[in-house]
Amino acid sequence: MLKVKIITPGKTKEHWLKDALDEYCKRLSGAIAIEFVYPRDDAHLIALVDKERLCLALDPFGDVVTSEGFCKILYKAFEEGGSRVSFVIGGPEGLPDVVRKRCNMLRLSSMTFTHQMTRLILLEQIYRAAEIYRGSSYHK
Amino acid sequence: MLKVKIITPGKTKEHWLKDALDEYCKRLSGAIAIEFVYPRDDAHLIALVDKERLCLALDPFGDVVTSEGFCKILYKAFEEGGSRVSFVIGGPEGLPDVVRKRCNMLRLSSMTFTHQMTRLILLEQIYRAAEIYRGSSYHK
Repeated sequence: MLKVKIITPGKTKEHWLKDALDEYCKRLSGAIAIEFVYPRDDAHLIALVDKERLCLALDPFGDVVTSEGFCKILYKAFEEGGSRVSFVIGGPEGLPDVVRKRCNMLRLSSMTFTHQMTRLILLEQIYRAAEIYRGSSYHK
Repeated sequence: MLKVKIITPGKTKEHWLKDALDEYCKRLSGAIAIEFVYPRDDAHLIALVDKERLCLALDPFGDVVTSEGFCKILYKAFEEGGSRVSFVIGGPEGLPDVVRKRCNMLRLSSMTFTHQMTRLILLEQIYRAAEIYRGSSYHK
């Protein structure tokens, strides 16, 4: 079973966002297990990222990718990371520089989203990547 | 009162997405009134867009913008359109070419989102634009 850990400060507060994340976790459950980890502060976030073998950061300074490109990056990371990949999303203040240096950085959009909404967009893109990988028609 | 009409085929089905859209419409209610219009098919969509004075299309072939750039485009469009702006989002098959030619096209991301999720991202960006415009700290 492939595993994705999403490290992101602050629990999800809004009920619709919880429902949406649950929905995508359920849809992914046959292919990829998702775990959310909520660091207490930047020091905790840095310590958590340090433990990870392979960590992808979502950041405004990251590389722009298409959904197909994201699929390739994700599945290459699964290969290199022993079926495990971690993502890190900064809080409202963004990611600490030390994390930016340690991770490969991706950008979801040139627009700014709330870090809470970024969780949903990431999860939908992971689901889309899984569907692209298995060759379904979801992504078309 | 500023008004935004969002022309997009297919009613919103998922309850979490309805809740999310309601939440943003409520937050915006002091500044911008939002109306969703659901065309039956492409012919209906084309007819609806034809009636609009000023229509912005969300499309993978559109211009990439930042949230600040989107704010400028939106408020300039309010000025030119007599406080009214319409957006059009295509269904799973995208927008008809005639609509692409008639509208100014914007792109939310190089990634592909479902057209349903695009509604939420658009609404959050409209809310963000309203906050940027009134100089709040939401967007920071």
